[in-house]
Amino acid sequence: MKDRRIQIFDTTLRDGEQVPGSKLNTEQKVFIATHLEELGVDVIEAGFPISSPGDFEAVKEITKVIKNSTVCGLTRAVEEDIKVAADALTLCKRPRIHTGIGTSDHHINFKLKSTREKVKERAFKAVQYAKTFVEDVEFYAEDAGRTEDQYLAEICELAIKAGATVLNIPDTTGYCLPEQFGAKIKYLMENVKGIENAIISTHCHNDLGLATANSIAGIVNGAQQIECTINGIGERAGNTSLEEVVMIMKQHKELALSTGIVTNKLYKTSRLVSEMMRMPVQPNKAIVGSNAFAHSSGIHQDGVIKNRSTYEIIDPEEVGVEKSTIVLTARSGRAALKYRLSQLAFNVSTSELDIAYHHFLEMADDKKTIDNNDLVKIMEICKKEAV
Amino acid sequence: MKDRRIQIFDTTLRDGEQVPGSKLNTEQKVFIATHLEELGVDVIEAGFPISSPGDFEAVKEITKVIKNSTVCGLTRAVEEDIKVAADALTLCKRPRIHTGIGTSDHHINFKLKSTREKVKERAFKAVQYAKTFVEDVEFYAEDAGRTEDQYLAEICELAIKAGATVLNIPDTTGYCLPEQFGAKIKYLMENVKGIENAIISTHCHNDLGLATANSIAGIVNGAQQIECTINGIGERAGNTSLEEVVMIMKQHKELALSTGIVTNKLYKTSRLVSEMMRMPVQPNKAIVGSNAFAHSSGIHQDGVIKNRSTYEIIDPEEVGVEKSTIVLTARSGRAALKYRLSQLAFNVSTSELDIAYHHFLEMADDKKTIDNNDLVKIMEICKKEAV
Repeated sequence: MKDRRIQIFDTTLRDGEQVPGSKLNTEQKVFIATHLEELGVDVIEAGFPISSPGDFEAVKEITKVIKNSTVCGLTRAVEEDIKVAADALTLCKRPRIHTGIGTSDHHINFKLKSTREKVKERAFKAVQYAKTFVEDVEFYAEDAGRTEDQYLAEICELAIKAGATVLNIPDTTGYCLPEQFGAKIKYLMENVKGIENAIISTHCHNDLGLATANSIAGIVNGAQQIECTINGIGERAGNTSLEEVVMIMKQHKELALSTGIVTNKLYKTSRLVSEMMRMPVQPNKAIVGSNAFAHSSGIHQDGVIKNRSTYEIIDPEEVGVEKSTIVLTARSGRAALKYRLSQLAFNVSTSELDIAYHHFLEMADDKKTIDNNDLVKIMEICKKEAV
Repeated sequence: MKDRRIQIFDTTLRDGEQVPGSKLNTEQKVFIATHLEELGVDVIEAGFPISSPGDFEAVKEITKVIKNSTVCGLTRAVEEDIKVAADALTLCKRPRIHTGIGTSDHHINFKLKSTREKVKERAFKAVQYAKTFVEDVEFYAEDAGRTEDQYLAEICELAIKAGATVLNIPDTTGYCLPEQFGAKIKYLMENVKGIENAIISTHCHNDLGLATANSIAGIVNGAQQIECTINGIGERAGNTSLEEVVMIMKQHKELALSTGIVTNKLYKTSRLVSEMMRMPVQPNKAIVGSNAFAHSSGIHQDGVIKNRSTYEIIDPEEVGVEKSTIVLTARSGRAALKYRLSQLAFNVSTSELDIAYHHFLEMADDKKTIDNNDLVKIMEICKKEAV
């Protein structure tokens, strides 16, 4: 059986970037976008163009350099939002407008102060209007995780009638359990008329630590696209981690799912995003944490030395973590240090290298070898001193 | 229906402490143990007594101060290990010895270089020997996640015959999908003779980001105990996060599960462990990350101001976080700005808000976040312009 190809929709530059302290300028966003394209993501959500002139500009600049990935702009179900997003996407090779509205009673009653009928009407009109600008229109039913299934199916049906190519079913508050989220997707696959004309997308938040499991449950039940971010960054407890869902699909062959991700670029992309967005990755983060492939207890080390498979299910090289042949000790020089720093996406100038090398030598005198964790620490010290 | 009471087995001081850079001295371990008891954990795995004199000492000291929680010591299926663990636990009010052996073919063939029959024999003898010291003996079938179900059932049956009170079914390499792990627990519940004389425990690793989902799947299918750590620390990508599984059980009333955890001590305990073990918690960590309750985009802030439930499923105070914060960034909208201004006693009209918002966006495009100082500056500019 041929694997089912799952679309990876990266929202690092939109949902990820709206986090306190993670703001990027246009140049940085373009830089990350080119790396996301190299990583092989199918869709780059580049921003929310109406939210600020800076965001508009960034989306526009990204469309100029991205050739293969679809570039997507977020909007509310508001004409002006959609018009501005369309403007930002005029130069785009594969443009997508992502529009939608809250569909749970929480959102309809408290936030929108509206009614189910009026919300349906706004959804239909928004998709229809977006469709006058671009062919590819994604509709999101915000807080779908807490939306009654039957109403959700009705609004999805309308969105398809208006021309939506993708239906985004977000668990906005990160509330669902995997079987609940899976059941919701299954219900839509079976009850939305015209579903064959669109694909379903998952967009799970991690408030209870279940975003990854929920996304996979969605895919297994018929969804075709996962919305996610590098390192799982995003609002509150963040989004689904791109690296986790991709590696689950790669490792679990029995699922018969595949993606276009070049997995050996995962680690580097993770480091890059962490650095530029100032969002540290905890050492025990799955796939990309600095300890993810470190075996520390005697029992584990013994096992791994005898045979890697006793405690390791992923070959670190598959995700771009090199079993580095360049071991850093107090005898290492600047070239080795610079090389190892570049592998961690730290690109230092000559003067920065001098400062880093000074701290490196101090640390190397105390420790036998300097590992990636230490290098990150050294760069943090350098950064603090520079401020 | 009365909730089923799930045991929380905390292994922060054992599986968590074996991580590079996280080593603690005895005093620190005792300090954390007392906090774990206050948090309400049922079992504290205090260490692996034979691994070092320091670890032996720490386990012993912990038993002197812990009154309500069970204190557990880890061993291999080796007589000397068990003897030393029993020695460390002599003063303990509720002692438990945790012994076991690798049961997957990976472990039997490569690590133990043994056979399935010999491993069964060692398991039986180890439990029997531990039972000569303490009543409460937990047996672990290491790498149970990759162990054939039928063989796993056989070895569990033997462990119960030898007197085991708890059967720990670890997904040592973090490989299982939730439905696979759940099915394994279900199989054991249905096929292990004498299972009514013991409880099943989950011990899931997070290599694919699924530890939390797998633990819950195990519990739903009949397990009675979850092994976990504060902040999910532990070997490689770490263990199940205590705070995540506890809050899932608390939030999802339909599961009819409860624990003894005093949830409003979660945040404090998380901070304490992070500080003492020098393991940073990433800002977007579920439940305990610094951003877990921060709302930053304009759409979200507007919703939360109107009604918390639009974007928040957990009241931050439930986990000991004082209150969620409305962080102002370039993605924030007028509603959030107005709210924050009102907190500073600036009550602006709609037209004044428009002007302030214009200056706010200009400043926010340059700065990461806008704080109270900045807001005062913005209002000063507005005032000057109005003159």
